[in-house]
Amino acid sequence: MSTLLLLPGDGIGPEVCGEVRRVAQVLTPDLNVEERIYGGASYDAHGTPLTDEVRDAALASDAVLMGAVGGPQWANAPRHLRPEAGLLNLRKAMDVYANLRPAYCFEALADASSLKRELVSGLDIMFVRELTGGVYFGQPRGIEDLGGGQKRGVDTQIYTTAEIERVARVAFELARGRGNRVASAEKSNVMESGLLWKQVVTELHARDYPDVQLEHILADNCAMQLVRAPKQFDVIVTDNLFGDILSDAAAMLTGSLGMLPSAALGAAGKPGLYEPIHGSAPDIAGKGVANPLAAILSFEMALRWSLNRADAADALLAAVKAALDGGARTRDLGGELSTAQMGDAVLANL
Amino acid sequence: MSTLLLLPGDGIGPEVCGEVRRVAQVLTPDLNVEERIYGGASYDAHGTPLTDEVRDAALASDAVLMGAVGGPQWANAPRHLRPEAGLLNLRKAMDVYANLRPAYCFEALADASSLKRELVSGLDIMFVRELTGGVYFGQPRGIEDLGGGQKRGVDTQIYTTAEIERVARVAFELARGRGNRVASAEKSNVMESGLLWKQVVTELHARDYPDVQLEHILADNCAMQLVRAPKQFDVIVTDNLFGDILSDAAAMLTGSLGMLPSAALGAAGKPGLYEPIHGSAPDIAGKGVANPLAAILSFEMALRWSLNRADAADALLAAVKAALDGGARTRDLGGELSTAQMGDAVLANL
Ligand SMILES: CC(C)[C@H](C(=O)O)[C@@H](O)C(=O)O
Ligand SMILES: CC(C)[C@H](C(=O)O)[C@@H](O)C(=O)O
Repeated sequence: MSTLLLLPGDGIGPEVCGEVRRVAQVLTPDLNVEERIYGGASYDAHGTPLTDEVRDAALASDAVLMGAVGGPQWANAPRHLRPEAGLLNLRKAMDVYANLRPAYCFEALADASSLKRELVSGLDIMFVRELTGGVYFGQPRGIEDLGGGQKRGVDTQIYTTAEIERVARVAFELARGRGNRVASAEKSNVMESGLLWKQVVTELHARDYPDVQLEHILADNCAMQLVRAPKQFDVIVTDNLFGDILSDAAAMLTGSLGMLPSAALGAAGKPGLYEPIHGSAPDIAGKGVANPLAAILSFEMALRWSLNRADAADALLAAVKAALDGGARTRDLGGELSTAQMGDAVLANL
Repeated sequence: MSTLLLLPGDGIGPEVCGEVRRVAQVLTPDLNVEERIYGGASYDAHGTPLTDEVRDAALASDAVLMGAVGGPQWANAPRHLRPEAGLLNLRKAMDVYANLRPAYCFEALADASSLKRELVSGLDIMFVRELTGGVYFGQPRGIEDLGGGQKRGVDTQIYTTAEIERVARVAFELARGRGNRVASAEKSNVMESGLLWKQVVTELHARDYPDVQLEHILADNCAMQLVRAPKQFDVIVTDNLFGDILSDAAAMLTGSLGMLPSAALGAAGKPGLYEPIHGSAPDIAGKGVANPLAAILSFEMALRWSLNRADAADALLAAVKAALDGGARTRDLGGELSTAQMGDAVLANL
């Protein structure tokens, strides 16, 4: 029996994860769903956003699904104990180096985009963001006191051949099952790690994936092209920091931001970490109005990528589309449905 | 007599700078316009993209106006001798730490944006990008051979209190003459240099600019908000790397990309460095079809910020607007005018 570990976390996390639980009961009754406290909630209860027990439970599961972490009440917690630190530690502990962030546009929502409809209708980009390296984790880092009221803040971006190769491999493999095109984004004209990135991707491509179409693109140009003509992209592979920014911009382009899931994958056979792209939305937390679709679609990705249930994933994706086509809309989509009613609409189409 | 040093550079650079020369002759006949070879052209002639003589001429001038640098023919030049390296060295030598990148939308071109008209009509953002620090220049940097086919690429992001303070000061001062709002973008939740950035901006604001409205925004959220509702921003101050990416995305949003200028400023009384945001566009170089307006508007910024000729700058800006309102369009804008004919259209309205 497979185990899904739910980490509802903070803000709207518990509400949207509640709908995942309901969907799982109906769709995959044989799935063992466990739940642990995490993020700000765990900081309040245990003085740390990620306890060793929860980390071990995550490593022992088949997939982890996170709701959301963080909120203003933890803004003044010590930096290494903030909810965000718990998230970074969990990513690192699970070694989920490849962050799959789809930016696709639900046809029923194409008009919600700030872009003209024809530029986003049918949009379907898959970002593969490196998630456990780069400037997020590089040493040395810190703030040094230089005296005389002066300080110096330092971060280090490091990438090794092995780190670049494994995440690029994920991108090429994914591309083969999609449009067969990979764009690799870096600042090789300015950064040494970017130059190594470009070289490693070029060599891997020539050696193992010559059938996939590869384009190198500077990260600033990539940002421009995403705004100008996003449909030109299929798979985009990039580092942790550029991936953070570019995938967020692309997600917003779709008009479906509150609906987008993500998957973070490690080595084959290891549990993946799944999370909605949206945040903890403290302003609407506890009101039962959050859109649960990003969490439900994160579950869809977990079924597909970690739980070996592509059949159930297909059924769930179809049910979400049918619910949307049928007019189901939470407030963020201009409708009136509550969190639970959106869950009902998906269940009714399962 | 003030001196403007023209560095036409590569690709379409010489063509668009030619129109600046014509405009200057009419608008500011007393301005001493000099010209030097630079970029790839200088690499071909002298083996380096920036000779000491040109660097000294830049430092001795009142303003430097660059056309464009780079092109495919220099892709295999040694890294430290590429045209881009010349550009970074010139920025550093001139110590132009504050890069002003306006993202505004010409009313006559609002429909050219990929965003819906109502989201960009009237858009007017001023980016203040830190230009001489951060990961572009931090040491240590390099690619190290680890043996066994493995390498490690390293870059270092460093910011000191003084570096952050001087660029933030420029942003606050500018805001006072505009919408009085500054958004400071960083990743203080992940980067130590970002945390110092936020602290220094907060303190400077409290001490010297409490009348200006200040917002701290995470760089990934900033990218999203630029796509969702760009008109919410007035001045955005950010570091070298985030500024590179965010300002390019914002420029593309306006639909006026080929038209946008930039200014890089140092200490008061030192020459500024002005350049169009567009690249060298090798595909259309030498054909006389490039749009010269970004270069002409870079001259407009030079008149305003370095040459003490706000009167002439106002007249030039009005002439550009009048030319556009009158229907003047180069090919990139869907029209048929040549580079020189667009120059004529501006001159006719001066
Ligand atoms: C919360 C933060 C640390 C995180 C990141 O920067 O990776 C978030 O923005 C994300 O993209 O998941
Ligand atoms: C050409 C390149 C080095 C440069 C940069 O990254 O600063 C360019 O993208 C820019 O924004 O002026």
